[in-house]
Amino acid sequence: MGVTMAQRPKQERAVQTRESLLRAAAEVFDEAGFAGASISRILKRAGLTAGALYFHFDSKEDLARAVMNAQPRSVVPWPESEGLQRLVDLTMVWAHQLQVDPLLRAGVRLTSEQGSFGVKDATPYEEWSQIMTEILEVACEKGELQAGVEPGELAEFVVEACTGMQTYSAAASEGRADLAERVVRMWRLLLPGVAVPAVVARTQVNPERFRKLIQTAGAAPAH
Amino acid sequence: MGVTMAQRPKQERAVQTRESLLRAAAEVFDEAGFAGASISRILKRAGLTAGALYFHFDSKEDLARAVMNAQPRSVVPWPESEGLQRLVDLTMVWAHQLQVDPLLRAGVRLTSEQGSFGVKDATPYEEWSQIMTEILEVACEKGELQAGVEPGELAEFVVEACTGMQTYSAAASEGRADLAERVVRMWRLLLPGVAVPAVVARTQVNPERFRKLIQTAGAAPAH
Repeated sequence: MGVTMAQRPKQERAVQTRESLLRAAAEVFDEAGFAGASISRILKRAGLTAGALYFHFDSKEDLARAVMNAQPRSVVPWPESEGLQRLVDLTMVWAHQLQVDPLLRAGVRLTSEQGSFGVKDATPYEEWSQIMTEILEVACEKGELQAGVEPGELAEFVVEACTGMQTYSAAASEGRADLAERVVRMWRLLLPGVAVPAVVARTQVNPERFRKLIQTAGAAPAH
Repeated sequence: MGVTMAQRPKQERAVQTRESLLRAAAEVFDEAGFAGASISRILKRAGLTAGALYFHFDSKEDLARAVMNAQPRSVVPWPESEGLQRLVDLTMVWAHQLQVDPLLRAGVRLTSEQGSFGVKDATPYEEWSQIMTEILEVACEKGELQAGVEPGELAEFVVEACTGMQTYSAAASEGRADLAERVVRMWRLLLPGVAVPAVVARTQVNPERFRKLIQTAGAAPAH
């Protein structure tokens, strides 16, 4: 099943087309919600035909699922710290990206609203939980977690809390402007109960660090 | 502005009619979501006319807001414990009622999905936060909270976490069957960081206590 030289450019175009459709759909879902997003508006935004869309996606629902499941790769830069600090950094970058990236914003929105269009898909939650579990397993090996704190359990709770804080923030502030503060507050309340004292003391949870992470990313070459 | 004897029965009927509409609307919203719930289906369920509905509510959106804001009174029995134990009990009763009471379930669902029908109303979140803040102020006065833990901040975080755990649970389990376990997990992770050690040790966070609270309510006369 090797890929010949002739096939490769065609595949690359297909990947680009799929990405264009995903981004256009995300923008329209983000603006109008699932019900308000028409296929024709998505196609107009992407500058593509219905044929291109139905080559990649079966339906508007299928497109919505793909947007929901594209969340983790929207978190850029992926933090390079380790252990609990990495999880803190991940949630902070997430809070920032949610304000600037329509693909992540639409994914999060559709995940919370999926019941409104008859979808029941735990994959986006489970993927985040899995990513956070792996980060916390490193924290655990490094002796950062208090006895009895299971990486998988803490990971799932952090996913739940982040999910709720963004819906609360969407209702209470303009453009989720207060989301970063909510993330900081979560860690202030949660860390002392889950991390050993030395780690609580050294883990940095402040908007200053968060701004630096983002700025560094802005200055770095694309990856 | 006194109420005469002649007015009172009429007012009582109006209160009953409003409640019937609210319950019928909640059942239909719970089954079909906002978009799928038609006014005619709600009226059929309530056994009432459009005239009765528009006397009490301006629109389907107005009805949805009323369902969203009826959440706190759906938590029955209201726990009689004090301080942090009361907040733990409140979240446990909430998790149970969410499985059995369509009014609460629809309220929670519509609150998370409000973006899908163009509503931006933080009132349900803020009301829960206010209720939990008052409970935590008592906990604070009793010396149950660790230094630096602000009742209002912890209250808002618990609302966020509960919001996210029910959307995660709705996607991951049938009828939010795992919600009580998620509430227990939250308290296991959160309590050690926010409560003084003696309170962590004595606060009961187990499904056993939760079942007893519900059973006692079932046996008690209506209130």
